[in-house]
Amino acid sequence: MQTVQVEFRADFIDLGVGQPAFSLLPTHVIKQAADHRLSHDAAAYLQYGAEQGDGYFREVLAQFLSDGYGFSVRPDRLFVSSGASQALDLICTLFVPPGAVVCVEEPSYFLALNILADHQLRVVSLPTDGHGLIVDGLEERLAQLHPTMLYLIPAFQNPTGVTLPRERRERLVELSHQYDFLIVADEVYHFLHYDVTPPPSFGAYIDGGHVLALGSFSKILAPGLRLGWVQAEAKLVQRMVLSGLLDSGGGLNPFTSGLVRSVLELDLQWPYLAELRATYQQRIAAMTDALQRYLPDAVYAVPQGGYFFWLRLPDGLDAEALLPRADELKVGYRPGIRFSSQGGLRDYVRLSFAFYDMATLVEGVRRLGQAIDQQRAQA
Amino acid sequence: MQTVQVEFRADFIDLGVGQPAFSLLPTHVIKQAADHRLSHDAAAYLQYGAEQGDGYFREVLAQFLSDGYGFSVRPDRLFVSSGASQALDLICTLFVPPGAVVCVEEPSYFLALNILADHQLRVVSLPTDGHGLIVDGLEERLAQLHPTMLYLIPAFQNPTGVTLPRERRERLVELSHQYDFLIVADEVYHFLHYDVTPPPSFGAYIDGGHVLALGSFSKILAPGLRLGWVQAEAKLVQRMVLSGLLDSGGGLNPFTSGLVRSVLELDLQWPYLAELRATYQQRIAAMTDALQRYLPDAVYAVPQGGYFFWLRLPDGLDAEALLPRADELKVGYRPGIRFSSQGGLRDYVRLSFAFYDMATLVEGVRRLGQAIDQQRAQA
Repeated sequence: MQTVQVEFRADFIDLGVGQPAFSLLPTHVIKQAADHRLSHDAAAYLQYGAEQGDGYFREVLAQFLSDGYGFSVRPDRLFVSSGASQALDLICTLFVPPGAVVCVEEPSYFLALNILADHQLRVVSLPTDGHGLIVDGLEERLAQLHPTMLYLIPAFQNPTGVTLPRERRERLVELSHQYDFLIVADEVYHFLHYDVTPPPSFGAYIDGGHVLALGSFSKILAPGLRLGWVQAEAKLVQRMVLSGLLDSGGGLNPFTSGLVRSVLELDLQWPYLAELRATYQQRIAAMTDALQRYLPDAVYAVPQGGYFFWLRLPDGLDAEALLPRADELKVGYRPGIRFSSQGGLRDYVRLSFAFYDMATLVEGVRRLGQAIDQQRAQA
Repeated sequence: MQTVQVEFRADFIDLGVGQPAFSLLPTHVIKQAADHRLSHDAAAYLQYGAEQGDGYFREVLAQFLSDGYGFSVRPDRLFVSSGASQALDLICTLFVPPGAVVCVEEPSYFLALNILADHQLRVVSLPTDGHGLIVDGLEERLAQLHPTMLYLIPAFQNPTGVTLPRERRERLVELSHQYDFLIVADEVYHFLHYDVTPPPSFGAYIDGGHVLALGSFSKILAPGLRLGWVQAEAKLVQRMVLSGLLDSGGGLNPFTSGLVRSVLELDLQWPYLAELRATYQQRIAAMTDALQRYLPDAVYAVPQGGYFFWLRLPDGLDAEALLPRADELKVGYRPGIRFSSQGGLRDYVRLSFAFYDMATLVEGVRRLGQAIDQQRAQA
């Protein structure tokens, strides 16, 4: 019987899975929070919730974000979502007419692209480099494309792990005003930084009404809670609050908002996040060592945040063609082509270090190296 | 600070509010379920969930529905939603192209109509009588309108309280095959029956792929959990499972699914529902007495289920025009025109008995009677 999204094969190491390890999920934190919440105002969190999200939760969330971002976040500029995917879905329904052009990074998160497709939007991908979306020459493209929305993952991008520098962020915001499009910044990895702090969240640029910054507790606490937020200017927040979905169903996840209110009020989030960061940092170190040993010719940057290594295979090897052999050796990954809107990036793979412990990651990389060696020997 | 959707004015009795009373919300049940769940496989419910919904939860939900409906419900025909509103929203995104015609009852639930509007659908309302949607003459209208979807509330309708008889249900299902449209049956009140059991849920008619039956724990357990289900044929379930939203975010509410799995497994739902039914039945009796006493000329049927009295005011009084006077006397209601897609039903009001205790309901009706008397005296 299936409870969780991904079913795991015995003895198979799927480095493609971008999910937290079961052992890392904060059962103890949620237990403490549930005990607290269910003995304080529990009934209010079982009722239809305020459309914008619980005021107390938004207050303590704003404080958490202010501390984390280093600039002041206002509770009235926060809208509580049931995760970044749901927020993107709602934004598509309310702000992007069917058939409109949406720009995305090449490569980008393939499941977000599916949400755009379900809304019958026209996706146009824009080139990136080692610092994310290239802003030089972008103006002409925008003038030509008239996008309604630009969807991007500015910090520790999925799949590349790359972070957009401050100057590019500011230039994009300028362009969004000039060419009147919405920037939807999917920042679910923002707080998972290990070595460096990323530039300011797009939440710093919401004034003027062209930016929606999406955050989530999925990567920093627990995906099963389905809880996230949108930071945006008042009129955009108001449009979401007045939508049929919100008006009819009430706020998006009142009960789990109540739980996470307690997590934040009991000051359990920062210590848990510190644990996560330390764990992921160790895993990155182990995986980097393994890559040097078993895939010495692969090209990649060591991730400074997020979940992923983005790796170019040696000799232009085709990552999809390699899959059957990898499968035989009981290792999985995501081929780069899955993240391309243009059928490109065939010699790239995305490897995640979030799901497995260090020893398993090393063994996974060893198997991948073996698969590559066999493939090359045969070529 | 606002936690819940509706803010209440001191000493004001808003008979318009269609929500359960705070005192009725099952804090004790949820506490028991949370203790159980957080000590059994808690981590699995904090992870990204299976897109269709937790298999264990669907198993016990299918059993619950089979017992309640009196026919066998298959777990593989259930899709877990985060409430009926969210299910309707997803159905609009995936199955109804923008600009398509959606038929609804006249009158119908005004907040569902807002969801349809957000998806830029063309709403056409169809006439009803004391037994719900009129099926005589419907065929010509369907041939003319080519609707993609028919949205209806077949049991204890919102606002009228009316229930669609079995023959009309079966005729509609025939017509949906013949004219190739989807029936979306919003059955959130189905289990709130007091005197009579409603005819079979539309879940009995899913074979053939033209029916989606929506249910929810909002009215029978707690709205703040945001948990519901869709019963449909495999290919429709599969389309929802494969949507971008589900693929990206995982199942819709894994954590609260886990809680309600425990509610059902610990056999807490049926006893709680029995309590609710008994309470609502007493309230209906009290309200009926009060209506006889304070609004003797109003025309209505005593509700046999659901949340609402649907009342025709005497002398063709305009319910919206009456609002300021009612407000002065500190009583509220929903004017019928809000439920009309045609600006009609001006002399109707919807009164709910779900939110207040008996004494308060009686006082509310007394105030409403007084407002009407004053209005008539002035006319």
